[in-house]
Amino acid sequence: MKLLYPTSLALDIKSLEGYSVALQPYDVTKPIPEAHTDASILVTWTNTADNLSDASKRLKNLKWIQSLAAGPNDVLNAGFDASKIKITTGSGLHDHTVAEHALGLLLNAARRFFEMRDYQLQSKWPQHLGGPQPDRPKGKFTTLRDANVLIWGYGNIAKSLAPHLQGLGAKVRGVARSAGIRNGVEVYGEDKLAELLAETDALVMILPGSDSTKHALNAERLKQLPNHAWVVNVGRGTSIDEEALFQAVDAEQIGGAALDVFDKEPLPEGSKLWRAKNTIVSPHAAGGRPQGAEILIAENLRKFIAGQDLKNIV
Amino acid sequence: MKLLYPTSLALDIKSLEGYSVALQPYDVTKPIPEAHTDASILVTWTNTADNLSDASKRLKNLKWIQSLAAGPNDVLNAGFDASKIKITTGSGLHDHTVAEHALGLLLNAARRFFEMRDYQLQSKWPQHLGGPQPDRPKGKFTTLRDANVLIWGYGNIAKSLAPHLQGLGAKVRGVARSAGIRNGVEVYGEDKLAELLAETDALVMILPGSDSTKHALNAERLKQLPNHAWVVNVGRGTSIDEEALFQAVDAEQIGGAALDVFDKEPLPEGSKLWRAKNTIVSPHAAGGRPQGAEILIAENLRKFIAGQDLKNIV
Repeated sequence: MKLLYPTSLALDIKSLEGYSVALQPYDVTKPIPEAHTDASILVTWTNTADNLSDASKRLKNLKWIQSLAAGPNDVLNAGFDASKIKITTGSGLHDHTVAEHALGLLLNAARRFFEMRDYQLQSKWPQHLGGPQPDRPKGKFTTLRDANVLIWGYGNIAKSLAPHLQGLGAKVRGVARSAGIRNGVEVYGEDKLAELLAETDALVMILPGSDSTKHALNAERLKQLPNHAWVVNVGRGTSIDEEALFQAVDAEQIGGAALDVFDKEPLPEGSKLWRAKNTIVSPHAAGGRPQGAEILIAENLRKFIAGQDLKNIV
Repeated sequence: MKLLYPTSLALDIKSLEGYSVALQPYDVTKPIPEAHTDASILVTWTNTADNLSDASKRLKNLKWIQSLAAGPNDVLNAGFDASKIKITTGSGLHDHTVAEHALGLLLNAARRFFEMRDYQLQSKWPQHLGGPQPDRPKGKFTTLRDANVLIWGYGNIAKSLAPHLQGLGAKVRGVARSAGIRNGVEVYGEDKLAELLAETDALVMILPGSDSTKHALNAERLKQLPNHAWVVNVGRGTSIDEEALFQAVDAEQIGGAALDVFDKEPLPEGSKLWRAKNTIVSPHAAGGRPQGAEILIAENLRKFIAGQDLKNIV
């Protein structure tokens, strides 16, 4: 049995030895060499569309694809035969990195580092942002302490993020398709969104990209937020109606937006979001560096060999 | 007995009732009214130099000044008779706010939000900062996970900051005048600085302003840091030799600097730090909003009435 692993990231391949599987590196930007089209298992990371499309036609023996991406849309759209090939995601490999970035964006918003930068570039001291300040004034998002943070899309990343926010004194609640208590955080169903949004100082969107999440945050939902509330998006750009968001920040109907993902990436030069009021543009930088990939691959490899259900199956 | 409290911040005065002390508000920007020059206790916050100088001459009955600032240089330099008047600081009231800001500056540095902002202002997508990235590359400060963070000046603020850094996966060590384990963090004496600095990815300075800390971080110390190391300062500006720091960032001898405090504030328009490479200028915004002042005032009031040693005495 042969497993092809990508050279597009540094993997500790030694830790995958001993499974009676031939481990073969491959270049994710070129067609798979003829000698390796007999592979049963393909691990993918930032493969080109051409590489995947070609692999879908030539890897006749393929039974399992382990993507290291949290949302493997590239693999799903490449033409692989879903009736014969299992696909598993890299969900969990990006929790820490995305949570750290989301925390950074929240602090950037609360502490207004973006505005300080604008002043710095003009050699100007933003006196209104420094010196004596009111402590936790009502109707402003100035700190995570006592802030109501709502996380919409409550999976692994949210579970990783919440303790950091709580440690800084935030009151964290979640919204997901299924309600319940997760790691001590109360997670509500989407039917409660209107009342939850009305009590939110910062909304963190971590929704996956799918037809059902498209424009989840639309003009109507944005209106339910208080005027000072910030929107942070580290999920998928399609989950926000960007035109409605621009209108909301422009009219100061919400406090601002810190966005790491966009409907179209790179964000087109003509997008109004670049220059929108109180808007932070981050270039899809939250994740992009899987951590612990070898552990996931090894676990799924054991399960695959044993004929058990794989982890993170699509 | 009369206590004068400042109207320069919102205090919950009700919580200070019941101590057989007359509680009298006063304006920190004007001379104390004649009727209140009999006060025994003065609470200060952002008083003008004129107010303090005047008070030092006219409040003949004064026995105790409770400053709400962590470093009450204004009160110490106003001419009060130190042989008759006890002075206590607001140490502890700024721990949370300064720790949050320091964390924000560290994430700003690691995630390069300042550089993203520069691109955003030109409607440009900084591709090199987004998409697939190497995970925790050696010789770069890209995340707090596994980063060596050294906190120089290990008091209350450091104790408040360290758990957040550890929660994000950083390895935290401290430097202070006295070595020892504090809240589980190993704190070294300054004699170990050379070897500690050499192993540092991010140095957080939280030194107080005093003759003994002046230019603590000088050209020699800066040379001991690795080329990728960042310097964050949320203590006092005088603790860094700014010319040496400018030379270090300009020569890329260190990774960068995120500064909330400066030798002269506001930072003069002609300072080279405004446009220095990889340098973040924050306008002394970390603290400036005491939290829990009423609890400190009440505790010290009880001790004052009982003739006990006051907390935070200078």
